Amino acid sequence: MKIDVLTLFPDMLAGVMGSSIMKKAQEQGAVDYQAVDIRSHADNKHQKVDDYPYGGGAGMVLMPQPIFSAVEAIDKNPEQPPRIILMCPQGERFDQKKAESLAKEEHLIFICGHYEGYDERIREHLVTDEISIGDFILTGGEIGALAVIDSVVRLLPDVLGNEASAVEDSFSTGLLEHPHYTRPAEFNGYEVPEVLRSGHHQKITDWRKKQSLLRTKQRRPDLLENYPLTDQEKQWLKESELNRD
Amino acid sequence: MKIDVLTLFPDMLAGVMGSSIMKKAQEQGAVDYQAVDIRSHADNKHQKVDDYPYGGGAGMVLMPQPIFSAVEAIDKNPEQPPRIILMCPQGERFDQKKAESLAKEEHLIFICGHYEGYDERIREHLVTDEISIGDFILTGGEIGALAVIDSVVRLLPDVLGNEASAVEDSFSTGLLEHPHYTRPAEFNGYEVPEVLRSGHHQKITDWRKKQSLLRTKQRRPDLLENYPLTDQEKQWLKESELNRD
Repeated sequence: MKIDVLTLFPDMLAGVMGSSIMKKAQEQGAVDYQAVDIRSHADNKHQKVDDYPYGGGAGMVLMPQPIFSAVEAIDKNPEQPPRIILMCPQGERFDQKKAESLAKEEHLIFICGHYEGYDERIREHLVTDEISIGDFILTGGEIGALAVIDSVVRLLPDVLGNEASAVEDSFSTGLLEHPHYTRPAEFNGYEVPEVLRSGHHQKITDWRKKQSLLRTKQRRPDLLENYPLTDQEKQWLKESELNRD
Repeated sequence: MKIDVLTLFPDMLAGVMGSSIMKKAQEQGAVDYQAVDIRSHADNKHQKVDDYPYGGGAGMVLMPQPIFSAVEAIDKNPEQPPRIILMCPQGERFDQKKAESLAKEEHLIFICGHYEGYDERIREHLVTDEISIGDFILTGGEIGALAVIDSVVRLLPDVLGNEASAVEDSFSTGLLEHPHYTRPAEFNGYEVPEVLRSGHHQKITDWRKKQSLLRTKQRRPDLLENYPLTDQEKQWLKESELNRD
């Protein structure tokens, strides 16, 4: 997969892209990242990338030319055109389903603004996707792009080793994860629950399922709305309500 | 504000923390970042930080000792104890309100796991907050911590310059932003809407308010649920529904 990130701050990306799974994916050849400095594509001599808004008002607006030119300059496969993704607070909320969809692509281009608004013509005539990672204000699109890239790259074939892929992720079962414990059995006076040290596999499996269910109910009841409950799970939920009275 | 980030990959942080607003905030003395290598606090000779889960199963679990010790070693003000934040998919969903609450603190400590689960005793007996940035799977907590830190740091007094703070943010009015346009008036055949070039301030203000409202209705109708509509805004919504038929 080819990944290009258009940014005004190319130095923001190297640390994250050069560590851990993202680094491993590049070393394996599963992915090829490129940071593209938007400024170097400005066709004016001062490398100006923004200008005042038409109609007045505070703030600056990223001009269409440097961004259209930067995208234009990237090698693309005409048979498999890239997804061109604008990181912005108005975009579609990113989630695991979107990550799975992007992981099937051959080429992703991310456009990261900074402080400013985007000229609307970028949104209307250049991009294929607008993505937001949540309802909070970031200074630029870079951190959001890194979140999207990390979640996509770890889905590519052979990128995750066994140690990581085998972990039961919070969103793969439809419920939040059960609690985990490791050594020591007692730490600062806090003990590991006895059932986990019992060696009784069925009891351990049941305990984990129940904890996972009750934690989801407490923290993320919305996830239960589309979750098909077994009779045993219904019983556990009922017991937990009785205990609360 | 003091910010400590406990991580197994300290190199991931420097690029983002050393750029843009986060860099400026540090240069101004508004914030002091420290990356803490969890591994250096392991009390075993191989600097081991994880171990197999009690009860069996795939994946490794971060041991309590290195993380408790790393937090213990950080200088704290006993009068203003730090918020100790665990980045995890089960946490409270991060939003702008949470950013505003964290921006009032004197000291934030972030705990970033990687691949693995956290020993439950960290969650129960050490942290004050658990935060998730969204329903997607990341390889570690670092990118989420960077998102939280960026959104908090830009709220600290005097960190944003005028050029940035003056921008109308998507979540400050309760609606999504209206479209922005800047020079040139025509780009690749795409024109800036005439009203924005009219010089008629009232018309421009109305056009922007209407676009902001209609865009919110189209993309994020949930934001309108608690938004107090004016009569004019109700009229615009009504017209847009009629036009759709």
